[in-house]
Amino acid sequence: MKRAHIAEAAFEFSKLKPESPVLVGVSGGPDSLCLLDGLAQLQIPLIVAHFDHQLRPESNQDAAVVRKVAKQLNVPFVLGSQDVAGFAAEMGYSIEEAARTLRYQFLFEQARLHSAQAVAVGHNADDQVETVLMHLLRGSGLSGLKGMSFRTILPTWDESIPLVRPLLAFTRTEILEHCRERGLQPVFDPTNLDTSFYRNRLRHELIPFLETFNPQARQVIWRTAQVLEGDAAVVQAAVEAAWQQCLVEEETGYIVMRLAELQVLLQGVQRGVIRLAIGNLLPQLRDVDFAAVDRVVQFISQPHSGQVDIVQGLLLFAEMEESGSSRLVIAKAGAGLNSQNWPQLLPEEEQEFTIPGEVVLSSGWKLESEWLIRRSNAPFNASDWQADTRWEAWLDLASLSSRLLELRRPRPGDRFQPLGLSGHSMKLSDFWINEKHPRRARQDWPLVAAGGTIVWIPGFRPAHPYRVTENTQRVLRLRLRRIP
Amino acid sequence: MKRAHIAEAAFEFSKLKPESPVLVGVSGGPDSLCLLDGLAQLQIPLIVAHFDHQLRPESNQDAAVVRKVAKQLNVPFVLGSQDVAGFAAEMGYSIEEAARTLRYQFLFEQARLHSAQAVAVGHNADDQVETVLMHLLRGSGLSGLKGMSFRTILPTWDESIPLVRPLLAFTRTEILEHCRERGLQPVFDPTNLDTSFYRNRLRHELIPFLETFNPQARQVIWRTAQVLEGDAAVVQAAVEAAWQQCLVEEETGYIVMRLAELQVLLQGVQRGVIRLAIGNLLPQLRDVDFAAVDRVVQFISQPHSGQVDIVQGLLLFAEMEESGSSRLVIAKAGAGLNSQNWPQLLPEEEQEFTIPGEVVLSSGWKLESEWLIRRSNAPFNASDWQADTRWEAWLDLASLSSRLLELRRPRPGDRFQPLGLSGHSMKLSDFWINEKHPRRARQDWPLVAAGGTIVWIPGFRPAHPYRVTENTQRVLRLRLRRIP
Repeated sequence: MKRAHIAEAAFEFSKLKPESPVLVGVSGGPDSLCLLDGLAQLQIPLIVAHFDHQLRPESNQDAAVVRKVAKQLNVPFVLGSQDVAGFAAEMGYSIEEAARTLRYQFLFEQARLHSAQAVAVGHNADDQVETVLMHLLRGSGLSGLKGMSFRTILPTWDESIPLVRPLLAFTRTEILEHCRERGLQPVFDPTNLDTSFYRNRLRHELIPFLETFNPQARQVIWRTAQVLEGDAAVVQAAVEAAWQQCLVEEETGYIVMRLAELQVLLQGVQRGVIRLAIGNLLPQLRDVDFAAVDRVVQFISQPHSGQVDIVQGLLLFAEMEESGSSRLVIAKAGAGLNSQNWPQLLPEEEQEFTIPGEVVLSSGWKLESEWLIRRSNAPFNASDWQADTRWEAWLDLASLSSRLLELRRPRPGDRFQPLGLSGHSMKLSDFWINEKHPRRARQDWPLVAAGGTIVWIPGFRPAHPYRVTENTQRVLRLRLRRIP
Repeated sequence: MKRAHIAEAAFEFSKLKPESPVLVGVSGGPDSLCLLDGLAQLQIPLIVAHFDHQLRPESNQDAAVVRKVAKQLNVPFVLGSQDVAGFAAEMGYSIEEAARTLRYQFLFEQARLHSAQAVAVGHNADDQVETVLMHLLRGSGLSGLKGMSFRTILPTWDESIPLVRPLLAFTRTEILEHCRERGLQPVFDPTNLDTSFYRNRLRHELIPFLETFNPQARQVIWRTAQVLEGDAAVVQAAVEAAWQQCLVEEETGYIVMRLAELQVLLQGVQRGVIRLAIGNLLPQLRDVDFAAVDRVVQFISQPHSGQVDIVQGLLLFAEMEESGSSRLVIAKAGAGLNSQNWPQLLPEEEQEFTIPGEVVLSSGWKLESEWLIRRSNAPFNASDWQADTRWEAWLDLASLSSRLLELRRPRPGDRFQPLGLSGHSMKLSDFWINEKHPRRARQDWPLVAAGGTIVWIPGFRPAHPYRVTENTQRVLRLRLRRIP
């Protein structure tokens, strides 16, 4: 490890500044000792942080070794110590997970305390190759295959202090050689958490096997990760732009997006937006399952009126906006969805009303009725006598069996004969399925009936028998409007 | 293989239309027989095409078998036959490469002849996984890791007829089972070209080994490829948009791009644009080398006046536009670059000229000289007396040692004292290096001198000693203009 290469890794790849302090996580193993030594050579101000996982009785000896090295380098030393095994048991985490959580928590806390520009850790080029292969085998897509970054923000730990990994530029062999050359004496941790059985097999069996196919396999995979990081950033930028385009509402427990905007996205962007939505709603998910994303992709291309289970209690369905365009809703089961955009009628609001008249609904809508005289000598054209909006209906007043109209909710057995369908009526439930009306909107949807027959479904269509014809003399005009 | 799945693979994934003919490449092996049988079940009109590679004495027996199957299905049969080994020797290709080249040539020729909507071939899901792993080990980045597509245009063979691979949706096991169930009798090709030693080891050793890490490794890799295909399309779209933005000129042998536009791209897009440029100039390159791309990335971030060897004789350098902004040139060594944008002076065009006067250059430029009287009582402000454009100079006429100006090319030992640098002069060659003036432009660059001293370098700066000062009474105005 030449000084120029260390400088390149630190200043160019990891974008460290030479003057402000870096907190270095030092376990005492070869990687972190080498990292500490390398950064110290560059004269960057450092803080050495060691975390004692308390997994071995003698683990405090490692702390003593690291403290001594820090003293030799004349660098401040901070020590954290926690009962990782106890924390793992308490949280239901694996030992590795618990160790990582507590360690990073400690490192970033200390970084904030010391106003460090970054937390530096000792992952090396071989770790990178192993990580890429683990992600390949786990199926975590581009974001996994790009491996670890020289510099990255992990919002879980800190929104602005980055984690940097300058040693990603160096192989394990180079690091061990550096330790020998510089007389560094790494501690040996028999429980080494970073080398689980699985990772060890990857390291000692899979990679050498891959090298029988291509002796340069390590380098090739390392370079592939680097190139994929650039590709992933391009996809990420496209996904973020699309997210802004598609998002209607993001609340705890649910996310609402514009369906039409989602439908025109490239599938790679669509998948990214879906992964982002699922990830925001279920932050504890590590990889978003292929099949879960696929279910949403499928629904976007062929939406229907039902609900789809995505993954871990997340539900997917479409609902309609006032304008008639559809929205896609991804929600946790039981999330209190905001239904303020819909006209809804509470049971106690069911009532009769007169013409002209006005009924105010507690959901923030108002029904207005009035009648008009049709005066026209021009030839009758039916389409002139249909309202332009879904929230207004023009009906033939004379054909109503009663002047007393009812405003009511759907009832079992309701039937409806939508405008344009002459001859027979259909079940209201079938009508709504055809119209992809969201299930959760139906139960409290306001209907207008006369003499027991539905004459208008606001937001949809008037009933065929009550349409305006050339014989109509008086026109009943009904409007449902949101109260400003 | 259920009929519904075959239909999904053919119509949905491969986007085949049910009515127009598909040309199916049938070797007689299990994959292609199964493909033929599956598509025939869907009632798509088919043409069976068999290509005899003449690699075994008895290879024409395969053709007979396939012909018989086609007859049973009542489907037209076409036969191609060529001496693959001879072609390989002649072209310096491997046998596999030669076989693929001649086979695809034949298939697409026949597809055009029969107005087929697509050429279908029998690659299956296991082939896909093997392909992804081969690309991972070879280091061909995202475009390799996405594997094969259900439907793709290969411009080498046809600009509009796609290659489709419906069997990518099915595993080898499913295909063999389908053959058994439907009584299909595949031929056995002992030289099976698609299963080279390398691929065989991948199939029989590497993949089973990966399954000891994750029993679902095959499925995971298959799905990863599918997802990466979407990601690759997002990157591709960004690269194509950037290409349009950056491209100045694309000619046989060289490509010119705007440096400033390249510099602001995301690195993933930048790499894509560079790969596209290199690929267009060297279409025979299969994978564009990481390091080659890196050299260009490096140059874009820190351009200099030298030339860089990219790969296989491709050169990289920067040159200036008339406006002063830089362009990046990627050129084959010896490509006749278009220098029409530069003023260039041929040896026989060197001459003296008078004031006022005019000299026309064969490179399409014109030098004009005139003098003006400076009449001003206002306080002198030096910056008012510098020309606004790099192609015009205002000088103090009285300070010239001679009224006879020379228009000449650079000479060894030329020195220059650029405006603003008082006290000493510098080597002309150093000045040009500082200015990043392309080497190939320098030799014929027109200079204006008086009494042996350079007074103006058109496109750059006038000489300091000849600048207009408050004592200037007569101003010499020089202009170099492109002749419209």
